[in-house]
Amino acid sequence: MPSLIHFTLDPFSRRMRLALGEYGVHADLIDEAPWEPSADIFEINPAGTLPVYLEDSTSPICGVEAIGEFLEETKAERATLIPGDAFERAEVRRLVGWFDTKFYAEVSEPVITEKVIRRFLPREAGGGGMDTTRVRNAMVRLREHLDYIGHLVDRRTWLAGDQLSLADLAAAAHVSAVDYFGDIPWAEYPAAKSWYQRMKSRPSFRPLLADTVRGMAPGAHYADLDF
Amino acid sequence: MPSLIHFTLDPFSRRMRLALGEYGVHADLIDEAPWEPSADIFEINPAGTLPVYLEDSTSPICGVEAIGEFLEETKAERATLIPGDAFERAEVRRLVGWFDTKFYAEVSEPVITEKVIRRFLPREAGGGGMDTTRVRNAMVRLREHLDYIGHLVDRRTWLAGDQLSLADLAAAAHVSAVDYFGDIPWAEYPAAKSWYQRMKSRPSFRPLLADTVRGMAPGAHYADLDF
Repeated sequence: MPSLIHFTLDPFSRRMRLALGEYGVHADLIDEAPWEPSADIFEINPAGTLPVYLEDSTSPICGVEAIGEFLEETKAERATLIPGDAFERAEVRRLVGWFDTKFYAEVSEPVITEKVIRRFLPREAGGGGMDTTRVRNAMVRLREHLDYIGHLVDRRTWLAGDQLSLADLAAAAHVSAVDYFGDIPWAEYPAAKSWYQRMKSRPSFRPLLADTVRGMAPGAHYADLDF
Repeated sequence: MPSLIHFTLDPFSRRMRLALGEYGVHADLIDEAPWEPSADIFEINPAGTLPVYLEDSTSPICGVEAIGEFLEETKAERATLIPGDAFERAEVRRLVGWFDTKFYAEVSEPVITEKVIRRFLPREAGGGGMDTTRVRNAMVRLREHLDYIGHLVDRRTWLAGDQLSLADLAAAAHVSAVDYFGDIPWAEYPAAKSWYQRMKSRPSFRPLLADTVRGMAPGAHYADLDF
């Protein structure tokens, strides 16, 4: 049986859980805490990043782009997540890159680092109280991204075009990791909110809505389809 | 005729110039300075990142992963840069991710930012003297990557396997941007050096070796095949 080494709130791991769900692939989840790397994680993935996909016990697939393309190449009989012609596929990948690079650096990385990772890290490795300025700045930048999501879905059914794609999964994975903490001003962004409602209603999303992190309950509307 | 909006020393732009060369695609190069964005760059690519590939005057392809996959999907009649079965292709993409994320954060980004970008940026935008500690730390981290390149080519013909791939192009693009400044201790890393010599000897590499940045001559051995 395939398995995925992941961390609950890691946006890259979340995207791959969503993708596996959409492709209809059942995978065992193996928890890995970023603040406490397993003894063998660097043997499995020299970069030490999450997630890692294991089709079987050998040949781990490492790197979120590599896993996304691997699943599309080997599991897309039932559903494709990189649909269309070469130009449409490029638009999917452009938006995945947008969320993995820009949204991550500006929003999800600071929020997750400050609210979660720093809490569990030993003090000598950077653990301690959260930097509230970093979190506040991230929540300001988030508004530009909610605008951009709204701009896209005003013109298209899904973020990259007429079909659900890896771009929606990437965006929803990053947004959901931030939404766990419950401070997203959804009421001010109706277009983005309606897209996120559609995402949350998908069966692939259900396991993510049941996630909890030790000692940190999710925000009141995190799992709510009517938020 | 296709064109590529690029910056001379940007490792992502360099990879795409190398890829176009390997695929045998002739593209016009359009210079873009990261410290002085063109008026229309954000219209062409909302993220403002380089490079951007234009197959024609419409439909720009943005994002380095998107361009890499687009070229492989549309130009690989003569040569493939993501060769092999799904597992081998995943290994190519894992290594591309290694250099784009890890090498870039640890080595090429600090070197290029401190030695080039900061020199041209206005003072109020972060311009000024270079942070020599950041550069020194980057050159220490570089040694781990030269070890890793050596480790790979001790076991394989090219970084990802028996065939040249996008992984070699990504690695050489990042390494070459640092090598422009001439401080790589090549003599201590014979395996990495011999791989880089093979890369430098390829016709696709020749245009990169002729590059210069305004007011900054390359190191003595930058263009030398026998360094």
